[in-house]
Amino acid sequence: MYSFECDYNTGAHPEILKRLTELNMEFMPGYGNDEYCASAAEKIKAACECPEAQVYFLVGGTQTNQVVISTMLHDYEGVVAAATGHVNVHEAGAIEFSGHKVLAIPSHEGKINVDELKVFIADFYNDGSYEHMVFPGMVYISHPTEYGTLYTKSELESIADVCHSYDIPLFIDGARLGYGLQSFDTDVTLADIARISDVFYIGGTKVGALCGEAVVFTKNNMPKHFNTMVKQHGAMLAKGRLLGIQFDTLFTNDLYMKISRHAIEMAEKLKGILKEKGYKFFINSPTNQQFIIIDNEKLKELEKKVRVEVWEKYDDTHTVIRIATSWSTTEEQLEYLGSVL
Amino acid sequence: MYSFECDYNTGAHPEILKRLTELNMEFMPGYGNDEYCASAAEKIKAACECPEAQVYFLVGGTQTNQVVISTMLHDYEGVVAAATGHVNVHEAGAIEFSGHKVLAIPSHEGKINVDELKVFIADFYNDGSYEHMVFPGMVYISHPTEYGTLYTKSELESIADVCHSYDIPLFIDGARLGYGLQSFDTDVTLADIARISDVFYIGGTKVGALCGEAVVFTKNNMPKHFNTMVKQHGAMLAKGRLLGIQFDTLFTNDLYMKISRHAIEMAEKLKGILKEKGYKFFINSPTNQQFIIIDNEKLKELEKKVRVEVWEKYDDTHTVIRIATSWSTTEEQLEYLGSVL
Amino acid sequence: MYSFECDYNTGAHPEILKRLTELNMEFMPGYGNDEYCASAAEKIKAACECPEAQVYFLVGGTQTNQVVISTMLHDYEGVVAAATGHVNVHEAGAIEFSGHKVLAIPSHEGKINVDELKVFIADFYNDGSYEHMVFPGMVYISHPTEYGTLYTKSELESIADVCHSYDIPLFIDGARLGYGLQSFDTDVTLADIARISDVFYIGGTKVGALCGEAVVFTKNNMPKHFNTMVKQHGAMLAKGRLLGIQFDTLFTNDLYMKISRHAIEMAEKLKGILKEKGYKFFINSPTNQQFIIIDNEKLKELEKKVRVEVWEKYDDTHTVIRIATSWSTTEEQLEYLGSVL
Amino acid sequence: MYSFECDYNTGAHPEILKRLTELNMEFMPGYGNDEYCASAAEKIKAACECPEAQVYFLVGGTQTNQVVISTMLHDYEGVVAAATGHVNVHEAGAIEFSGHKVLAIPSHEGKINVDELKVFIADFYNDGSYEHMVFPGMVYISHPTEYGTLYTKSELESIADVCHSYDIPLFIDGARLGYGLQSFDTDVTLADIARISDVFYIGGTKVGALCGEAVVFTKNNMPKHFNTMVKQHGAMLAKGRLLGIQFDTLFTNDLYMKISRHAIEMAEKLKGILKEKGYKFFINSPTNQQFIIIDNEKLKELEKKVRVEVWEKYDDTHTVIRIATSWSTTEEQLEYLGSVL
Repeated sequence: MYSFECDYNTGAHPEILKRLTELNMEFMPGYGNDEYCASAAEKIKAACECPEAQVYFLVGGTQTNQVVISTMLHDYEGVVAAATGHVNVHEAGAIEFSGHKVLAIPSHEGKINVDELKVFIADFYNDGSYEHMVFPGMVYISHPTEYGTLYTKSELESIADVCHSYDIPLFIDGARLGYGLQSFDTDVTLADIARISDVFYIGGTKVGALCGEAVVFTKNNMPKHFNTMVKQHGAMLAKGRLLGIQFDTLFTNDLYMKISRHAIEMAEKLKGILKEKGYKFFINSPTNQQFIIIDNEKLKELEKKVRVEVWEKYDDTHTVIRIATSWSTTEEQLEYLGSVL
Repeated sequence: MYSFECDYNTGAHPEILKRLTELNMEFMPGYGNDEYCASAAEKIKAACECPEAQVYFLVGGTQTNQVVISTMLHDYEGVVAAATGHVNVHEAGAIEFSGHKVLAIPSHEGKINVDELKVFIADFYNDGSYEHMVFPGMVYISHPTEYGTLYTKSELESIADVCHSYDIPLFIDGARLGYGLQSFDTDVTLADIARISDVFYIGGTKVGALCGEAVVFTKNNMPKHFNTMVKQHGAMLAKGRLLGIQFDTLFTNDLYMKISRHAIEMAEKLKGILKEKGYKFFINSPTNQQFIIIDNEKLKELEKKVRVEVWEKYDDTHTVIRIATSWSTTEEQLEYLGSVL
Repeated sequence: MYSFECDYNTGAHPEILKRLTELNMEFMPGYGNDEYCASAAEKIKAACECPEAQVYFLVGGTQTNQVVISTMLHDYEGVVAAATGHVNVHEAGAIEFSGHKVLAIPSHEGKINVDELKVFIADFYNDGSYEHMVFPGMVYISHPTEYGTLYTKSELESIADVCHSYDIPLFIDGARLGYGLQSFDTDVTLADIARISDVFYIGGTKVGALCGEAVVFTKNNMPKHFNTMVKQHGAMLAKGRLLGIQFDTLFTNDLYMKISRHAIEMAEKLKGILKEKGYKFFINSPTNQQFIIIDNEKLKELEKKVRVEVWEKYDDTHTVIRIATSWSTTEEQLEYLGSVL
Repeated sequence: MYSFECDYNTGAHPEILKRLTELNMEFMPGYGNDEYCASAAEKIKAACECPEAQVYFLVGGTQTNQVVISTMLHDYEGVVAAATGHVNVHEAGAIEFSGHKVLAIPSHEGKINVDELKVFIADFYNDGSYEHMVFPGMVYISHPTEYGTLYTKSELESIADVCHSYDIPLFIDGARLGYGLQSFDTDVTLADIARISDVFYIGGTKVGALCGEAVVFTKNNMPKHFNTMVKQHGAMLAKGRLLGIQFDTLFTNDLYMKISRHAIEMAEKLKGILKEKGYKFFINSPTNQQFIIIDNEKLKELEKKVRVEVWEKYDDTHTVIRIATSWSTTEEQLEYLGSVL
């Protein structure tokens, strides 16, 4: 049965499996010290137009958020995030497990508002008892957000300005970064992300890899002995080659961007189908995740034919569902979906 | 250059890559809910002769130790381990990061001694101030140990008896379990491991997989909401299929045991070469890791031709090195090694 | 200068100092094993009409919240609290330091609403991905709240019912419990608190002691090896007598309730003065903390004569201030305050 | 019954209770912002001959160790301590609870050996895989040790030299510091302690206070936002005056040193009695704790008349016991003890 419930329901881009197979019997040192990790890092630095960047490969998204946030925060600091942010809701308390609080501020379709951020931090320092409170030590945003929405370049710059006025880093969770950068409706480039943020990651798991996220420290600011702390978090992969070869492949011949573009094209086609069928959109998403409101009876029928994600209850007779495209979505799959929607 | 420094310097058994490739475009649910995780779990339960076992797939060894130990211990407990145990020395404090102490007892070529264990725990409860001390809440052993040595079945049973007399679990780190079970010099089977221990893991990373460890709870004792705690540790893999397919392959047609046996056969051949060449063994290891004492000048020459692992200084003119075979070691590689040793 | 900024700005009730002095040279065992801790516990159990209660003395409020919450929660659980709750705002992340998330729900003048609580927990279990989220594992309320407000008996019972329907404990932070129980406007008794909650504490620091909070586990539910975990948190007092003698004194001849009543009487007198002077109340508090809105110029004058607590900005020309009475407030002090307000 | 089991079995020096009583009704701000904390800090800085010192008051010893160690260490570091050190054995895992490992090295009657320390750290950095290990980030010693023994000035300087050659701090646990400084057999002064160490604490709990330890950061090296982290650990006392007044009293007219000297004089008298009676000393302790070997039958008789601490089993018919003097021990008590020994 075709599945549109998420963007991590197929394997890896075939080119990745091909390279893993070709290089399979080559001896390589462990723990990310192989030449493919090195080569992938160089290619990413070039793609980011950020020669001073430091690149580190981790396995998954929650892991990356936990490791990056807890190693960059001071003990007395927490991370500011949208109330709907992955770190606040869907990581089972991974940030708190590492000893830090998530300081939630309002979410606007997944995004934070720069003015509300400003007020939040200013209020903190204006509070007479702020020494008894968790310091805002980092701002976390996801781009695209968990709702598929995007920040404009100007919004990102404003948020970064607030961060830097307090000397705290801006961290961009790019679990679906490719789908954001290749949206038809964005003015943000990978180089912008690298220039504006202090640390971000390029999601592999949801964009063509079997697993893997590439963390990019953009200001020569990788925490001291980061490697040791990755190990301490249980996050170090013995066969680092698995990450190195995948990212080396994704950043060769622009593959990452090309397959991201494909997912966006499929999403636009999907939006066309949904509009044509008269579905109401829950959110106006310019990326690969689409959220529509569907009649519960209709949904029951639909679920017999394809897999979609139930997002939340809309009202007593309607439900919000997520339909996602990915690098692997085909025209044929969308046509079938159109025929049963 | 041929590398004998460890058992995780090549990719995966070709059959694994073949299956990953064949199943690549199939839609599968995430987070270990795919059919290959289910099938692999069933095959492992059968191989363990333990139908009530609960099997959970994780990515790496340190991660597995941290997750298993910290979710099974009470807050007031620590884990007893050999001073040389991986959890005590080479995990950068991953156990302590999770809030628990490693209670180190003497190591005898990597093994703990059951009488010393008995005394250690008895002394704890005899201490008038034990309420101010960390309770021994689990015993951790590795089999094979970090030094390649093995416990006998009777030793394992005695250690388990001590554990169970205090109602605490015995955890066996089986990062290299296959190489232990296929040793020419063991009376321990996989079913013994499952019967004797309370929880153990079957190492994949070092035995033919790209990554992956299969945790087996043998007494229907998987901690409640284990899944949530795995997520909380940043240890949950989105594309659980990567682990499911690998372990399903390894436990089809006895592949895991066959490739482990191959590594042992290569190790025996290696031992023959080393003896013939007159090398002195640092430890008498019946598994895939061999430790010899080598003259420093000789080592310098050797390192120009093959990669080996410097283990520790032996004396001013000699060094202990580790030479490891694995599932991927070939006769040709050993012959070359013999020619340069 | 008279200070009305809080209820912990004087020492201890003189009877406490008298007893500490009388018993000073008596030999007593450490760590709470002295006879005064035992006697105090018995008196508290009697006052609570809860013979099966287990009483444990700790030093301070944040410490108590951290120890109680983190030892009662499972690893995968967080604590539900009002957004304004002390544990969420003013403990510098002490709960997160212990690895747990505070799940904030709306605050209504410091109180949570039982229907909102119900919806919050129901929504959690209705969420398809709740296994990736922090489980609600306890409900924390403060009584009186940080805003001086009180729950009715019926409200407490309803909240407890919700908790128990999910088999999670209700924890009442009673840092100012005496002032709540002695309010002119409450139907809640100490026995009610013990009957309704699963664990609560009787605040000493703010009600006549130099330091100390008496934790009461009401359902024979003190966590196993609690003593060891208290030590692990750095929260065990060597000279437990300091806590035992204080609480023994406070619970002899109803002293705790009498001095609490005095503070309430002083608060009522204060309210009369404030009303007479025409001040607008920010919150209608029936306990010892009063919150009024004051003109900024007036405040500047006032602060030259007495100390009050600036609570928050009200508007561009007004400020909310807190004026607190305590066990030690005198009529004379209030008369002086009245003369300068 | 007279008790000689420890040095914290009576209340406080009478002068402390007197001052607490005199100042009881004075209004003072909370959280250590009162004038007595300030004054006590100044007096301690003077006594340390260290004008740049930063002094912070905490409640108890384990708490102090946990707070100081965890706030001074980097995440990737552990603390080196004697295997018998309080932090390694008798704090129920308080250091590990804060995420850090205790790196135990051999204990010689409670002391570490500088050469063994040197080798331990050098070996760490010589290990090829040290990035996978816990970095030695601080050295912890107790002075006097848990066995009553003392370092010489030269030993302390050598240990500090090792620390500083690796740019890590030396932390001295001075829970019984007064008894060390006033020993007849020491060349170490308080000013030496301040000059040689990077941080240490002056124990109050065991030297005349109801509770309280004064942490002294000697090199202008108090961690940033230390106050917030103290709160986060649940270690901040609301009525900081309780600590301020006690230490202000102890450091007025040299009271701390005088009462320490008294305890030492009593210990010397005790040693005389023990020698006269022919008891064998388990350790040669120059401070207030004496350890002797006693026949089990004799011990049974003794325990009917006085309280002593059973330390450990010596052999099948003998036991090691601890007999401690303190600031409150009287000649009369010792005479009685002599009569029943």
